[in-house]
Amino acid sequence: MRILIQGAAVIKRPEEGVIPQADVVVEGRRFAGIFAPGGAGGDFDKVVPGEGKLLVPGFVNAHTHLPMTLFRGLAEGLPLQEWLEQKIWPAERKLTGEIVYWFSLLGLAEMIRTGTTAFADMYFFMEEVSRAVEEAGLRALLSYGVIAPTPDRIEPELKRAESFVREWHGAAEGRIRCAISPHAPYTCGPEVWKEAVRLAKEFKIPVHTHISETKREVEEHRERHGRSPVQWLEELGVFAVPVLAAHCVWVDEKDIDILAAHNVSVAHCPSSNLKLASGIAPAWAMLQGGVNVAIGTDGAASNNALDMIWETRLAALLAKVRAEDPQAMPPPEALRSATQRGAQALGWGRDLGVIEEGYLADCVLLDLGAPHFAPGHDPLADLVYTACGADVEMVMVGGEILMEGRELLTLDEEKVLARCRELARKFR
Amino acid sequence: MRILIQGAAVIKRPEEGVIPQADVVVEGRRFAGIFAPGGAGGDFDKVVPGEGKLLVPGFVNAHTHLPMTLFRGLAEGLPLQEWLEQKIWPAERKLTGEIVYWFSLLGLAEMIRTGTTAFADMYFFMEEVSRAVEEAGLRALLSYGVIAPTPDRIEPELKRAESFVREWHGAAEGRIRCAISPHAPYTCGPEVWKEAVRLAKEFKIPVHTHISETKREVEEHRERHGRSPVQWLEELGVFAVPVLAAHCVWVDEKDIDILAAHNVSVAHCPSSNLKLASGIAPAWAMLQGGVNVAIGTDGAASNNALDMIWETRLAALLAKVRAEDPQAMPPPEALRSATQRGAQALGWGRDLGVIEEGYLADCVLLDLGAPHFAPGHDPLADLVYTACGADVEMVMVGGEILMEGRELLTLDEEKVLARCRELARKFR
Repeated sequence: MRILIQGAAVIKRPEEGVIPQADVVVEGRRFAGIFAPGGAGGDFDKVVPGEGKLLVPGFVNAHTHLPMTLFRGLAEGLPLQEWLEQKIWPAERKLTGEIVYWFSLLGLAEMIRTGTTAFADMYFFMEEVSRAVEEAGLRALLSYGVIAPTPDRIEPELKRAESFVREWHGAAEGRIRCAISPHAPYTCGPEVWKEAVRLAKEFKIPVHTHISETKREVEEHRERHGRSPVQWLEELGVFAVPVLAAHCVWVDEKDIDILAAHNVSVAHCPSSNLKLASGIAPAWAMLQGGVNVAIGTDGAASNNALDMIWETRLAALLAKVRAEDPQAMPPPEALRSATQRGAQALGWGRDLGVIEEGYLADCVLLDLGAPHFAPGHDPLADLVYTACGADVEMVMVGGEILMEGRELLTLDEEKVLARCRELARKFR
Repeated sequence: MRILIQGAAVIKRPEEGVIPQADVVVEGRRFAGIFAPGGAGGDFDKVVPGEGKLLVPGFVNAHTHLPMTLFRGLAEGLPLQEWLEQKIWPAERKLTGEIVYWFSLLGLAEMIRTGTTAFADMYFFMEEVSRAVEEAGLRALLSYGVIAPTPDRIEPELKRAESFVREWHGAAEGRIRCAISPHAPYTCGPEVWKEAVRLAKEFKIPVHTHISETKREVEEHRERHGRSPVQWLEELGVFAVPVLAAHCVWVDEKDIDILAAHNVSVAHCPSSNLKLASGIAPAWAMLQGGVNVAIGTDGAASNNALDMIWETRLAALLAKVRAEDPQAMPPPEALRSATQRGAQALGWGRDLGVIEEGYLADCVLLDLGAPHFAPGHDPLADLVYTACGADVEMVMVGGEILMEGRELLTLDEEKVLARCRELARKFR
């Protein structure tokens, strides 16, 4: 299959700005070249018209919980503990594989519509999530979330995590990869972490976890262990394998040095951190300190959208007030965090995240026709500060088109919406 | 003209939640009633189908500078002073009435598309802004921004402001009202403020200004005057007339008490305050303290969008982290600030901002078909936390439909876009 995306403005790499007009060729799963308009020779199986549009690397959502789309808008306005104890946990006990499958499809539909091509997810019923991902056509790093508050839970939980990796790592022609996910330092003890590292080494996969999301959690950890969660994990040897750490809201300078020294990737989740009043992560300080900061939406229960374009804008704006510097996280840096740094966080850094010959063809075409893109002094700034998910018109993952003309091609959207609305009733 | 909006879910007043399905009747410029489906009798000149849609009061953008749409994306990433001195001020010197007219239309197109029905604007060339508003069909509180750093500027500036009021107050069948706008306490001395109050009393119009936007501005004011800008204005007697104060980022408890005691309205502009690293206004503390907090986008040079749906979501999220309370500014309160509190801030409080018999028929219909609205446990929370501007499908102001089926009816959008792109070239 040879595809020509013709005459769009192109952002190959955010740090290089915008090419006003180019022809991009896709062969099989990869980009085969970028040419001056009319400069790509040969025949094409398909031509995607790009004039008046902007082609960008696909957005990478570095941290989410897809099945939680079921809980979007459920029990808003309760304090965190009541919300968990009275609403989310009882609701989670009612989950079934079927429910998870359908709400994963719903989340995937929203992600495709808003330009996400790859994501990292950790939850339960991950076999059903994987089935949904396989059908929808996205790229994903998936893991079973290990929660072992008591010793008897350790072995069964880790077995479950391992068997998921054995079954699904490398599936969907390589679009699905697996991680190993101790949920957090406060829900998993040293035994779990050590075994997780052993598994990560055995399968050559990353660890995906939550670190230092709330102030209270970090204070309690310091009281119990005499050091921060980041220091504690370093001493346990966890950072000897690639780690994707969601949140990192409450990290200090020493923590940042440790994260940078071990090439830990951080999934910055600004909406969720605001909504739960957790705080504002020092994303710009982490980037300046050499940490690979990606961006994630977290689950729809605490965002409530799965829209990376919204999330990128929020990250770019918040960084400025957090760093007290209007020049912090300028548009190209925000976009890098939302694309190539996300690809690196998911373990695809070497061949994903930019539009260049040889890289996997994950990309998104945005219609620049809306008034918010005019007058167009700086399309990259417009993308970061004024675009919205609905501007996305075409989405491609590994050379396969998942949406064209805002029409989903891999999912029966009406059926997914109808099924989810029906299944949701018993949770109200 | 008698219009039926048929079968939509309806938010009459955010504090009352969502009516699952209702028929809304508009007669002339006002709502004539809300009925159970099929319950509205009589004939209709027009029926707007509302099934699967959500009807809400029109969004009110309580602070913007429409012509600055020209500067969207111009010179991103410069520090504030350089940005002003090297880019914005020289660019503003090149403005003409024609340019202001076309970029006002551009901003109006964006506002209609994202559900704004009324707004407050302060800038120069306000006659041209007014002409654009008259054509586009929105409702607006408009004022000439008085900047008088030297005594010789006082009289000519105030004359200009007054003559604009004489010419335009009450125009466009009452859709346009005027305010008097000393730009800020740091650009206008006591003489200007006193004369502004006199004019506000004479014409029975509000004062629209900027107060306490940056920390430095407030510190300098305290050094010079021995009190905060809010206290200083109170002592000058400015709050004897209705005041709409943009920003109020750096206000303390005493300031909040003063604002509340005098029924001052605040235009909270969260995006702009983040982007310029000004800070996060204590919007929830102000609301709790009895201040009428509305929401504004500020100009497109510092946002960069004019999208009230985005701005409302941001306000709702930021309030939680600012107040360290996940229950701060729940969705109904955020929506009230974006609608009825905005109407009050603009001086239309008594007959605008809710969907009820007798109120002016300013409303917006959103399509709930996108996956981000599913499963739909709480449509009001979905509107605040996951909707995007592009979900807006129909916009009505005073009974006149400005957009239907996402088609602008009062503006030639293609012409506006083309003209603005052309005019913008000389500013690069």
